[in-house]
Amino acid sequence: MEELELEQMAEEIAELLDKKDIPKLKQVLTPMNPADIALIFQEVDEAKLPFLYRILPKELAAEVFVEMDGDEQELLIRAFSDRELHEMLDELYMDDTVDLIEEMPANVVTRILKNCDAKTRQTINEILKYPKDSAGALMTIEFVSLIEGMTVEQAFERIKRTGIDKETIYTCYVTDRSRKLKGVVTAKDLMLADSGTIVDDIMETNVIFVDTLEDKEVVAKQFQKYDLLALPVVDGEQRLVGIITVDDAIDVIEEEATEDISKMAAVNPLEDTYFKTSVFKHARNRFLWLFVLMLSATVTGLIIQHYEAAIAAIPALVAFIPTLMDTGGNCGSQASAMIIRGLAVGEIKTSDYFRAVWKELRIALLVGLALSMVNTVRVFIMYGATIESGAQVIPTYMFAIVTACAMVVTITTAKFLGCSMPILASKIKIDPALMASPMITTIVDAVSVLAYFSIVTTILNAYF
Amino acid sequence: MEELELEQMAEEIAELLDKKDIPKLKQVLTPMNPADIALIFQEVDEAKLPFLYRILPKELAAEVFVEMDGDEQELLIRAFSDRELHEMLDELYMDDTVDLIEEMPANVVTRILKNCDAKTRQTINEILKYPKDSAGALMTIEFVSLIEGMTVEQAFERIKRTGIDKETIYTCYVTDRSRKLKGVVTAKDLMLADSGTIVDDIMETNVIFVDTLEDKEVVAKQFQKYDLLALPVVDGEQRLVGIITVDDAIDVIEEEATEDISKMAAVNPLEDTYFKTSVFKHARNRFLWLFVLMLSATVTGLIIQHYEAAIAAIPALVAFIPTLMDTGGNCGSQASAMIIRGLAVGEIKTSDYFRAVWKELRIALLVGLALSMVNTVRVFIMYGATIESGAQVIPTYMFAIVTACAMVVTITTAKFLGCSMPILASKIKIDPALMASPMITTIVDAVSVLAYFSIVTTILNAYF
Repeated sequence: MEELELEQMAEEIAELLDKKDIPKLKQVLTPMNPADIALIFQEVDEAKLPFLYRILPKELAAEVFVEMDGDEQELLIRAFSDRELHEMLDELYMDDTVDLIEEMPANVVTRILKNCDAKTRQTINEILKYPKDSAGALMTIEFVSLIEGMTVEQAFERIKRTGIDKETIYTCYVTDRSRKLKGVVTAKDLMLADSGTIVDDIMETNVIFVDTLEDKEVVAKQFQKYDLLALPVVDGEQRLVGIITVDDAIDVIEEEATEDISKMAAVNPLEDTYFKTSVFKHARNRFLWLFVLMLSATVTGLIIQHYEAAIAAIPALVAFIPTLMDTGGNCGSQASAMIIRGLAVGEIKTSDYFRAVWKELRIALLVGLALSMVNTVRVFIMYGATIESGAQVIPTYMFAIVTACAMVVTITTAKFLGCSMPILASKIKIDPALMASPMITTIVDAVSVLAYFSIVTTILNAYF
Repeated sequence: MEELELEQMAEEIAELLDKKDIPKLKQVLTPMNPADIALIFQEVDEAKLPFLYRILPKELAAEVFVEMDGDEQELLIRAFSDRELHEMLDELYMDDTVDLIEEMPANVVTRILKNCDAKTRQTINEILKYPKDSAGALMTIEFVSLIEGMTVEQAFERIKRTGIDKETIYTCYVTDRSRKLKGVVTAKDLMLADSGTIVDDIMETNVIFVDTLEDKEVVAKQFQKYDLLALPVVDGEQRLVGIITVDDAIDVIEEEATEDISKMAAVNPLEDTYFKTSVFKHARNRFLWLFVLMLSATVTGLIIQHYEAAIAAIPALVAFIPTLMDTGGNCGSQASAMIIRGLAVGEIKTSDYFRAVWKELRIALLVGLALSMVNTVRVFIMYGATIESGAQVIPTYMFAIVTACAMVVTITTAKFLGCSMPILASKIKIDPALMASPMITTIVDAVSVLAYFSIVTTILNAYF
């Protein structure tokens, strides 16, 4: 639904809610998509939310619940009777229950666990033991498993009997009696096969699976590479313990991109959305890097201070520093962004290091020459034939040579570091996204200012 | 498969290829996943690729072909006889054929079209007419459609009869006789229903669909929001013309993130992978922004030049410029990255503008105060009680006040612009990712240097 439609719908529902027109509310809400209902519920007065929620049919209610924000979920759980909570938990998939528990405060968690049956409680506790970003924490335990030797007809019976509660029935997993994963068979294969066929004969035995402890980033990559709808998760003894479905993989892909973008902008990744994160937390997540980078910038300041005599003699020299620093920063940021993203999506490997450096150096040369030419034109337009500054008169062409040299050194350094630092970080298992623009800019600044003043004092030596 | 495994496998296959051991090659390759085979084929000597490719069973061969790079696909097509090409095209899904045609040079395209049957050729031409990033260009036309009034049994028969060639059979689309989309029914619903049930009774009539001209970014968002496996595409008269499957949506999500990261780093998005793009193209994609930003940095230079007298009197003032510029750049980059990403994933809307600004201003105040304090300590450590520069001696506490004020102004400006510019860009339909760090840094630089020297000349007035 479009934003506008949703707003109109929210208004309509608010009106009906004021009139307490339950039949009409039911009629309007029931055909809607759970994700849309959850968005509309965000606009509803909090005090009226439990009343409105209770109007929904049980199954739809659970689907809407999963789509809601943590705050609203908490509000509802606190309003629920124990019976209502129990019924709702019955409708949830295991992975959604686990997600819910991870987000709720301790006293709500106690109530949730109390209202689960003993077996569910045990499973939840097991899943909670997996590390936060692991396949185990991401998986659901509701999958269809078939046993070796079953016929297609038996498989269908099993799917009909147990499938209704499963998150997907489109990929079925074939195991032996000890639950070891032996193969997968898709619903498509089953539907197109004769009913007497043994599943072993039509199953794919070259199964792609992950270990419970595998990182979720690797999980997401498997989905992309092999175009999967679901991915089985096995324990240390190759026993099938769960599956991860494609909708969760999509969320991981998006989260990973968001995390990388945060890190590349020198922000510690947020745990919540932008608006749900407090001002204080935002400030804290941004301060550390600013602090480190500010202190590092002092080095550039010290270099400039070292050349105080040159600056006092020809103050115009300083006017070129922003151009140099910004160009260096931008060049480094371009190279590092390309490399970091390439590493993240698997287009660039750490073994490509020299190839990437060689490429960046050639790019640096092309870009450096082009920008130096533009800069020469700029300098002549700004100053004419001579630059008068302090007590000195310098021929502009000499200044143009100085700036052109400084520019090429800066751009080459920036491209080299922007390419090297992420790859080398990746090699020593540091997240390459940390080696992005801010980090590189700080180093390039120091190098470029040093190069600039070294060239200045060499070429313009006669004027000091 | 892991990188290491793949390398070993590639070596093994190269050896078998040298020995021309076809039975063994067939035995090793056939159980493998098409995506892995394509990776291994990348390592194979180009001259031997057609030979190796012909060893694969026909269906697997087509699956591998789809996973290969454009260069290798072209190589193979050139090596194919017309009959081989025809057979391969028969095995491809329509959307893959269209992707192939879009990538191949003109003479290869002519050969491909010549070897398609007339109906396929017509469909290809129609799909090619859709804009590059539209739903129409992304969709496949191989879907299962059911007609209103069919029973579940009839539906299954239709799926069995036609489903084998379809990209997905898990979502079936119900239309009326004039092909207008009326509802969807999942394979799960069909499997769990009685065979005599009419599909109209179990289909979902509140269907999520997109128009052929819808942007692919919107398409991807629908998949995320509603956890879809497939999304129907309709024409202007609501007639069903194709579907988009979740694997293509995942690719779009990844491409969009890559594009945003490129733009945020002031690089025109590449059309190909990092290594496949030539040095010249890389340079061209980076030059434009560098050029614009370099010229804009001139403004900052001019501001500095305007204060030449102050610099000549107290050259130490210049040493603070890198700290100020870097901190401003980093603060702007932090805010803009958060906001741009928030807009992209839909967490922030343009209507949230004032809320976001208010949040950023408070963050700016917190961060600004904290960094000013750190900076004061830094200044006293570096200079002691007085700063001697040029012919002047300034009390350090005065310099500390100047820098603290400049810092707070810079950080506030940076956070304000970093937050405002992406949201305002989005409001006037400009891609917010363009309003990222490089753009904002350039403006913040000018503002912060101007603020710094204004404060300097006001507070330190007595020393000039």
